Amino acid sequence: MPLDRLCHTIRYRFSDPRLLRQALTHRSVGVPNNERLEFLGDSILNCIIAQDLYRRYPKLSEGELSRLRAYLVKEQRLAEVAVKLDLGDYLILGEGEMKSGGYRRPSILADTVEALIGAVFLDGGFTRAVEVIATLYHGMLENLDAKAVGKDPKTLLQEYVQSRKCALPQYTVVTTSGEAHRQNFEVECAIPELNIRSHGSGSSRRGAEQDAAKAAYRQATHA
Amino acid sequence: MPLDRLCHTIRYRFSDPRLLRQALTHRSVGVPNNERLEFLGDSILNCIIAQDLYRRYPKLSEGELSRLRAYLVKEQRLAEVAVKLDLGDYLILGEGEMKSGGYRRPSILADTVEALIGAVFLDGGFTRAVEVIATLYHGMLENLDAKAVGKDPKTLLQEYVQSRKCALPQYTVVTTSGEAHRQNFEVECAIPELNIRSHGSGSSRRGAEQDAAKAAYRQATHA
Repeated sequence: MPLDRLCHTIRYRFSDPRLLRQALTHRSVGVPNNERLEFLGDSILNCIIAQDLYRRYPKLSEGELSRLRAYLVKEQRLAEVAVKLDLGDYLILGEGEMKSGGYRRPSILADTVEALIGAVFLDGGFTRAVEVIATLYHGMLENLDAKAVGKDPKTLLQEYVQSRKCALPQYTVVTTSGEAHRQNFEVECAIPELNIRSHGSGSSRRGAEQDAAKAAYRQATHA
Repeated sequence: MPLDRLCHTIRYRFSDPRLLRQALTHRSVGVPNNERLEFLGDSILNCIIAQDLYRRYPKLSEGELSRLRAYLVKEQRLAEVAVKLDLGDYLILGEGEMKSGGYRRPSILADTVEALIGAVFLDGGFTRAVEVIATLYHGMLENLDAKAVGKDPKTLLQEYVQSRKCALPQYTVVTTSGEAHRQNFEVECAIPELNIRSHGSGSSRRGAEQDAAKAAYRQATHA
């Protein structure tokens, strides 16, 4: 796949194209690979996201800022960024990884995004890295629900009903099925005052409650 | 204590002195305090140390770079930086912290160094933060023993004797004293081929062995 398209997507053209190539090279290929660039890029991403959040949310505590940042730089998020860039098409993988579908593996994709950021920083400096990260995270930073990020559904739901001065959600196990080591739980979540009743399932009681809370929260906030 | 002296020491003069004041203000004072700046400064320090190490050690793996960085940014190291700056003299503490000697507490000193870095970054930008960190870490980065950092003395010593193709160090408990819950161990470490014999003590056998290994490593490498 011609690298020009990738440069166009991230809106950055490398002075030293070897850096870009190295950023895309998985360790399964040998040396040089992108591991050192990933180390560098991870710290640059953390720093740039931190400064963005610091300026964007002047009222948030450092604990809340940390939570938001953790959400934005975790593997799942980076893998989403990679998919947006079609990064899998550009990966340079060893034979084994190629055969086993490494170009779709979230951890490899996420690491490569970090390596790419490291390469931009080395090639173009801090300000260009800020710009590229703004492009990669376009939409994500702007549409962040700062209050909801990183909280589990039960906590979110509880905070929501408390803000409405309602009684806490009630969770009831409706059915359990399956053998002892492979049970399935179905749980109902009810908030009578808000006329909300939802169901959830999971392989543990707690998992089923979270699932039900998620559905209830959706009902409550999308009403 | 006049802040001019501190600015002189870190070789940076703030355009907005309120940022410096905020960086020095512990949460025990109330709001605003330095907690958000600490969040920011921590990530900037991590990033700048990462790029320094990346360039300084082109052969190290990302695992080794991570280990070096962890060593350089940990609380103990930051507290040492703070002591070099006499940062305790400038801290703005609430009454409780003041009475309990907060200006000497390593965690408060370390957090304040990070906040100071965050403040420089906001006030002067990335490049000035790089310069200030180079000043704060002067000598530490240059004299880093990249191989030794972060390893415990027994591991270090073992690697050393292996590199000399000698037999492994022998540890022997020489004496134990004290009551069962408050014992003291004395251990001898011997490497006959290198004519090394050292002693160490500690409240556990393992601690005493590490102490003896440290002394032996010193003998071996300063011979």
